[in-house]
Amino acid sequence: MKISFKILIVLLVALSMSFKYKRQSVVIINKANPNVIIILTDDQGYGDVGFNGCTDIPTPNIDRIAKNGVVFRNAYVSYSVCAPSRAGLITGRYQDRFGYSRNPLYRPFDPEIGLSLNEQMLPDLLQQSGYNTMAIGKWHLGVHEQFRPWKRGFNEFFGFLGGGHRYFPEEYIIANQDSAKNEEQSYRTKLIRNQTAVEESEYITDAFSREAVSYIERNKDQPFFLYLAYNAPHGPLQATPKYLERFTQIKDAKRRTYAAMVSAVDDGVGLILDKLQQSGLAENTIVIFLSDNGGPENVNASDNGPLRGGKGSLFEGGIRVPFAIQWPQQIKANTEYDQSIISLDIFATVAANVQGIAKPKNALDGVDLLPFLNGTKKGSPHEFLFWRQFDQKNYAVIHQSGLKELILKDTNINLYNLKTDIGEVVNVAEKNIQLLQRMEQERKKWEANTIPPAFYGLNQEEDYIKEQKLKKEN
Amino acid sequence: MKISFKILIVLLVALSMSFKYKRQSVVIINKANPNVIIILTDDQGYGDVGFNGCTDIPTPNIDRIAKNGVVFRNAYVSYSVCAPSRAGLITGRYQDRFGYSRNPLYRPFDPEIGLSLNEQMLPDLLQQSGYNTMAIGKWHLGVHEQFRPWKRGFNEFFGFLGGGHRYFPEEYIIANQDSAKNEEQSYRTKLIRNQTAVEESEYITDAFSREAVSYIERNKDQPFFLYLAYNAPHGPLQATPKYLERFTQIKDAKRRTYAAMVSAVDDGVGLILDKLQQSGLAENTIVIFLSDNGGPENVNASDNGPLRGGKGSLFEGGIRVPFAIQWPQQIKANTEYDQSIISLDIFATVAANVQGIAKPKNALDGVDLLPFLNGTKKGSPHEFLFWRQFDQKNYAVIHQSGLKELILKDTNINLYNLKTDIGEVVNVAEKNIQLLQRMEQERKKWEANTIPPAFYGLNQEEDYIKEQKLKKEN
Amino acid sequence: MKISFKILIVLLVALSMSFKYKRQSVVIINKANPNVIIILTDDQGYGDVGFNGCTDIPTPNIDRIAKNGVVFRNAYVSYSVCAPSRAGLITGRYQDRFGYSRNPLYRPFDPEIGLSLNEQMLPDLLQQSGYNTMAIGKWHLGVHEQFRPWKRGFNEFFGFLGGGHRYFPEEYIIANQDSAKNEEQSYRTKLIRNQTAVEESEYITDAFSREAVSYIERNKDQPFFLYLAYNAPHGPLQATPKYLERFTQIKDAKRRTYAAMVSAVDDGVGLILDKLQQSGLAENTIVIFLSDNGGPENVNASDNGPLRGGKGSLFEGGIRVPFAIQWPQQIKANTEYDQSIISLDIFATVAANVQGIAKPKNALDGVDLLPFLNGTKKGSPHEFLFWRQFDQKNYAVIHQSGLKELILKDTNINLYNLKTDIGEVVNVAEKNIQLLQRMEQERKKWEANTIPPAFYGLNQEEDYIKEQKLKKEN
Repeated sequence: MKISFKILIVLLVALSMSFKYKRQSVVIINKANPNVIIILTDDQGYGDVGFNGCTDIPTPNIDRIAKNGVVFRNAYVSYSVCAPSRAGLITGRYQDRFGYSRNPLYRPFDPEIGLSLNEQMLPDLLQQSGYNTMAIGKWHLGVHEQFRPWKRGFNEFFGFLGGGHRYFPEEYIIANQDSAKNEEQSYRTKLIRNQTAVEESEYITDAFSREAVSYIERNKDQPFFLYLAYNAPHGPLQATPKYLERFTQIKDAKRRTYAAMVSAVDDGVGLILDKLQQSGLAENTIVIFLSDNGGPENVNASDNGPLRGGKGSLFEGGIRVPFAIQWPQQIKANTEYDQSIISLDIFATVAANVQGIAKPKNALDGVDLLPFLNGTKKGSPHEFLFWRQFDQKNYAVIHQSGLKELILKDTNINLYNLKTDIGEVVNVAEKNIQLLQRMEQERKKWEANTIPPAFYGLNQEEDYIKEQKLKKEN
Repeated sequence: MKISFKILIVLLVALSMSFKYKRQSVVIINKANPNVIIILTDDQGYGDVGFNGCTDIPTPNIDRIAKNGVVFRNAYVSYSVCAPSRAGLITGRYQDRFGYSRNPLYRPFDPEIGLSLNEQMLPDLLQQSGYNTMAIGKWHLGVHEQFRPWKRGFNEFFGFLGGGHRYFPEEYIIANQDSAKNEEQSYRTKLIRNQTAVEESEYITDAFSREAVSYIERNKDQPFFLYLAYNAPHGPLQATPKYLERFTQIKDAKRRTYAAMVSAVDDGVGLILDKLQQSGLAENTIVIFLSDNGGPENVNASDNGPLRGGKGSLFEGGIRVPFAIQWPQQIKANTEYDQSIISLDIFATVAANVQGIAKPKNALDGVDLLPFLNGTKKGSPHEFLFWRQFDQKNYAVIHQSGLKELILKDTNINLYNLKTDIGEVVNVAEKNIQLLQRMEQERKKWEANTIPPAFYGLNQEEDYIKEQKLKKEN
Repeated sequence: MKISFKILIVLLVALSMSFKYKRQSVVIINKANPNVIIILTDDQGYGDVGFNGCTDIPTPNIDRIAKNGVVFRNAYVSYSVCAPSRAGLITGRYQDRFGYSRNPLYRPFDPEIGLSLNEQMLPDLLQQSGYNTMAIGKWHLGVHEQFRPWKRGFNEFFGFLGGGHRYFPEEYIIANQDSAKNEEQSYRTKLIRNQTAVEESEYITDAFSREAVSYIERNKDQPFFLYLAYNAPHGPLQATPKYLERFTQIKDAKRRTYAAMVSAVDDGVGLILDKLQQSGLAENTIVIFLSDNGGPENVNASDNGPLRGGKGSLFEGGIRVPFAIQWPQQIKANTEYDQSIISLDIFATVAANVQGIAKPKNALDGVDLLPFLNGTKKGSPHEFLFWRQFDQKNYAVIHQSGLKELILKDTNINLYNLKTDIGEVVNVAEKNIQLLQRMEQERKKWEANTIPPAFYGLNQEEDYIKEQKLKKEN
């Protein structure tokens, strides 16, 4: 009640100001609002964090988040490769609703490829509500000017725009994003600070951690939103001796380097948590840790634990990720939460817990998790979760009971009981006919509110060229 | 008895004439024989006619056929894309028996691609029995001279030879079929009247309807066979304001145009039924309405109702089609028939009900439906129906019980109970092991009497070139 | 006991000799050791031998082996195409352990493609134990110098190095293997005797039989190992009138030629068995007959009997082969053996039954079958057998109970009961959940001890070129 009254005053003041200074954006700063830090790793497997049982790569700092707050055992992302998963997370909506359902074709001169401008990103909403916002690391949501972080709600940016990057600064030989002629070159561009290419001297993961700590330092006095998207441990597998030395006991060279890369991220997480503690911000900062999709199987470096499949697949190994949140002020330490949740819930949860925030532009697919975590709400946040891989005609539906429908390559419909068969081995469709038919109905309803991909994907160069040619002819 | 005697006389007369005028083909005109009109639409979905529950596109005239006669709820075509389906229909035989089991590669200069000359088309048989015959619309059974309609039993032809066509006459800029260098150009050829390219001024669907009505008018006094193969509502999606205006309430632009195209066909069907009525021919004319395969899923315009999959698939959405027949003299109005039937039955049904007809050249796969419709025969016309997609190694078998075996992409064998699970969701193989094993045996027996495709298909240009090269080398 | 003593003496003598003549390889000749002849046919179907019920192609001589010894009804090879299957057979180890799990890309100038030099072939082990060794026919285990038969343990070689060959000597127009620029040309090279290209005048199958008989004749007085790898009845389908005339009753031209090719092999087997008999060697010669994989389905010439699928598939038709062994001294005539065995057992069986043999270099996956055949050991030689197709992500596991897990194209996991459902029609996973989960565990354990393919396969030219380019850039 008190807060609402305060907000009202602020609003009235703001309103009066808005009359005075026309055309200037109104910023309402509510200092009681929590800071938000999303730490997103890239291609890290379900089994590659200590809190999910990893034994060969210690992740004490990532584990601190889980211990300080809640660990989710059944947490999903909305796609099993990088870009669409990020698009879902940052909009709070299934990316299929706006056609961002492929890893985009790298076409530096095609201005159409990016996250639809009709969509609102979380930083945009928070910025309107007086948050300072920063993105660090990998973007992958559009390389053209109109899609860049500073056009989508971020006050600051430090990182790169493409789908991945090399880790050693001496390899950054391409002057800027616009000079990169192909995917491979985009991995070698100079990093960007805000809108300018800059020189960097540190191992990329260390650089991102450094920037994150510095950003917190600079924003102690105002609610902030930090989207820290490490490209680690995505390929290429590259690590410095500092981290490699920790894993001499791992024989396999790929796993060893991978472990070192995860360890570098973990160090960074430690620095961030320490900085929050030292600054007195820890209590009211929401820190969210997750991976953008499962570990790739073919690289043979990551580990999805007991899950079947990996990156790119709709088996659990592709979409179930390590996921933990700490927010000491609101979430009890050492919480375990077993209902199915999804990365789309991040937007909804943050939006629901920021006082005075505007209404999101579009209908959200996620839900506020807080009432479920503190016991106000019972049951499952989602009766159904949905996945679609448009090109392969693959679909998955997970029901709150833990039954998962999987349609692969337009052939069979399988039903797995994730509670008893986490490896997705046995089709139990015949025993659950009615629920399965209901899942099919719900899936079709859901799909009726999606659109096809809005652009071509990686390795669809030929289709793209064919379409361009057709356009010219007609 | 009376008729048989009459036929005898006619035969004797004919026989005597044949001695007189040698080398002249003997034509036996039995005026009691029914006229036959096949109205075939292109890519129209199972759910896109009023008699199958369509709500947004009224099809009152197509529905008249169903009301005047029999509607089939479980009617199939023998393939899920255009050309092979048409090949099955017009020969009354599984097209796999003669290698017409792909949509043909468009190779204007390769004279081998067409419906085998060893096969007999229904018009050829009817023509021999004194019918006048005409094909209107889409051909798609061979573009080279020896495969053209006038070589296969049709007295008259009006339409185009390829796999599809544009709808507005101002787009017919290619002088004739032989000038069309590729598939796309074949959509822009001038229409052909008999063997000559002609100018056309009407929307193509209206033109075909006009020709059909005119043909009936010209053939009141002699049994005729009219094969009216509308290319509507096959892509490209093109309609005139006259039809578009009827569907302003449909928001989706594609569905709106599609609806207009179906509505134009429906108007044409109305004109034909009216003309039959006015000419006193309705009683003894068999009018058959069906679509050549299911609606394509990717176009997002057609609707296969509750069926899974669409054009190109062996799920029901690809092969189960809207299907109705009227023949007031023999079939009671408002009949519903629920056993599985197939387009191959058309040839057999017509042949069985034409007095004095010759024996078909090859063994038919279809059966005469009339005894089943009027109750003379009980049970199901087909114990088993078969489908094969050679390139994908897909197969389907439907048993008279409504159980359907589906083998997709050389992987799993699924068994669906179409009576309880029309959406083909739940594999019930374990509960029906013996029947499934029998279906496998029957499938193999059936396949032993088929041959591989006799020519390359669309998008197999490379394979074609490779083979030509090999031939030259050896 | 007596034998052991004899061996001791021989060993001591050998030891003393080894001190005398340093650097000279020590050869221990134990004349009591059995001769070994492996007769391997190429792409012959499970149903294409008399002892498996073939009716249209008499194979009286191949059947003699079965009658003289044991016929295996559930005998497998370790891969469903030629080269990997041979790699498994000749090393006694799953070829996945050393990356030979594709039919190799034909790259005459890439020296990396061949069977890993870390692996030991059976002839190498036998040669060390005083055997004379010869390979006749198709090699397919590496065309470059270091991979050739004379470098892998064979004293003599007569045949060709690639994956197949034409049958008529007038077609051998390429001077030698190194001149063959592509796969097709490698089918036309001159045959090689030891290391030299030679002229040949006979139909290839007859030539190989002739050489085999001659080799036996020349090696009556010393244990020998003969690896006779007929390329028949692999394509191209070519036979001489002598054999064709036997099958005028077969209408299908392909099947007729195929039958003639099998008949030529059968004649050769007869000559070999006769020669053994005449030479008094039959009693103590192990003669093993098998095919390298199932018959190809697309050629429509071979017959896999009741089995599903064919060459290239993990259905039974791809991996279950005709298999018989005679060894009169040790195996009772007319034995039938129904437990599952695998071609990998050949190495282990031979090695276990040669007195004084060295320890194989690497751990074997096969087991000595003799104790199972003579009843000393009960139960099944293998609790589990494993197959992997790396590129397709296909797997199969067969349990001693006859239950077979099949994972195809990364989609469904099916379980078949081979004892009641040899055609692999009905998935019985739901009834055997626990065993299936155990099979999955065992499969993963097994796979943890394999490596990815060590080279590119046929039709992976593009991948190969891409990799070479990347290597150059980095």
